[in-house]
Amino acid sequence: MEGKGPLASDFDVILPDLAMGQRTPERAETKILEEACNIALSAANLKPEDLEYMLAGDLLSQIISSSFAARQITAPYLGLYGACSTAAESLILGAMLIDGGFADTVLAATSSHYQTAERQYRYPIELNIQRKVTAQVTVTGASAAILKSQGTGPRITCATVGRVIDLGIKDSSDMGSAMAPAAADTLFWHLSDTNTRPEDYDLVLTGDLGRVGTVMLGEVLKDKGIVLGPNYNDCGLMIFSQDQDVGAGGSGCACSGVVAMGHIYKSMLRGLIKKVLLISTGALFSPLSFQQGETIPGIAHALVIEQA
Amino acid sequence: MEGKGPLASDFDVILPDLAMGQRTPERAETKILEEACNIALSAANLKPEDLEYMLAGDLLSQIISSSFAARQITAPYLGLYGACSTAAESLILGAMLIDGGFADTVLAATSSHYQTAERQYRYPIELNIQRKVTAQVTVTGASAAILKSQGTGPRITCATVGRVIDLGIKDSSDMGSAMAPAAADTLFWHLSDTNTRPEDYDLVLTGDLGRVGTVMLGEVLKDKGIVLGPNYNDCGLMIFSQDQDVGAGGSGCACSGVVAMGHIYKSMLRGLIKKVLLISTGALFSPLSFQQGETIPGIAHALVIEQA
Repeated sequence: MEGKGPLASDFDVILPDLAMGQRTPERAETKILEEACNIALSAANLKPEDLEYMLAGDLLSQIISSSFAARQITAPYLGLYGACSTAAESLILGAMLIDGGFADTVLAATSSHYQTAERQYRYPIELNIQRKVTAQVTVTGASAAILKSQGTGPRITCATVGRVIDLGIKDSSDMGSAMAPAAADTLFWHLSDTNTRPEDYDLVLTGDLGRVGTVMLGEVLKDKGIVLGPNYNDCGLMIFSQDQDVGAGGSGCACSGVVAMGHIYKSMLRGLIKKVLLISTGALFSPLSFQQGETIPGIAHALVIEQA
Repeated sequence: MEGKGPLASDFDVILPDLAMGQRTPERAETKILEEACNIALSAANLKPEDLEYMLAGDLLSQIISSSFAARQITAPYLGLYGACSTAAESLILGAMLIDGGFADTVLAATSSHYQTAERQYRYPIELNIQRKVTAQVTVTGASAAILKSQGTGPRITCATVGRVIDLGIKDSSDMGSAMAPAAADTLFWHLSDTNTRPEDYDLVLTGDLGRVGTVMLGEVLKDKGIVLGPNYNDCGLMIFSQDQDVGAGGSGCACSGVVAMGHIYKSMLRGLIKKVLLISTGALFSPLSFQQGETIPGIAHALVIEQA
């Protein structure tokens, strides 16, 4: 699906299927993540032992995809959980470890998989449950970025770590609405702290709000006096085309991961855009908390990526 | 149970029961974690808005205890997953954020709960399944530490982030054996990197290896030419007394959390010990990966806490 979407040409690898020759979709997700890490290492001409830290997380309970991939990569490993905001969380923490002088070379990675996420959060795909109109499709993929203290590529220049925001959404088929208030909160504080306006960025990019969440983001921002212009987009809207059957758009850790580390990164290298504000968004719930009737809080982390 | 153990007098609060007046044990765990954070804030004479970051994680799928507690604390939140090594992971990352100049005040917190962990990882307690002799008892509790750039208390002076190590253990009732090789690996690299010996520390303290895992640690270390002396102990052995019915000892995120942030912290303030090497240990598996027949990799993160 992702390989048939409009960003396909910017992905390093397009998988032939969801199984990757593995016995379970969970093993397939681990394998995809390992491959993404190995491709990133290879592109940077590095070996796993050159890595000082690996920062990674995913959507699965106890982040098994990341932990099992870290076993193969063998770098010192810090596991993260930020739901679909993990791409930003890993990049921000990685950049801080480097800027703080604790490392020169860090791997920041994340993954998601349609089948593992459906089984984990909603229904096993074998049941073929109908999607609600607000539901999004979890992106199958993995992103891996090598962050270095020196070099010529795009740089992470600024970050705003988000707070947990909960407006009381309880529908696990409407993640966009659960995450939009958090995206608005983080964007508001980021602009305020850095004294910038949305138009100061070539692109303001949310992670996976999708068709429903982006509308709600606009509504919540209106109350804060912020209006997003044509330089705003959402990874969940970009990764699939309108004629693909993907409900309200893409979602999952890999959604902002592969769009930012694939399409955006390559657009920056091509000189098409110079300054991006990436706001990865996450919905903080578990199948158990959902079954227990808890609401679904959201979180969003923002970072600025610049190409000189 | 923890309140009847030998370290009870060093805990700020001893809970009357496991329910905390909540409808579910998961809500109780969130509540315990919130309370620990509030006690730490209050002891440091801080308000939640003084916190620049909250770093937290727990054992539950999608770390809902931490995320829900972060919603109440309202600080910028970075979710972590390191299984039972999370206490060390949060302290290490918090110390790096401060030392790197990104913050002056950070909250590092973690929790675990016997009933939520049993339901999550093994059997609901209602089934009253017999414990295997190698099984440990998850500590019910929460720890929260305020890390500051300035002050007079114990300081985090050094850290070694561990790698994922897997010797092929598959028994989810023998976490000690799954984690011991990781503890040995991290200890070996820590001593090697810092050019220290175990006897250079007043206390070398592993997180929750328990009676079985500590024996295996000794065996693995023997191969590496390291011998631990009487200054070695394990939080899982310390928190309960021999006559309590706790199988192979305590475990869980809160095990090294409450022992280190309760008993050890207070022993340092009393001048009884000056330099501690804390190695929190975690088993990286999920109920699903266990059911799918995957092995259980371990991880261990080490940090040195010193009181001048």
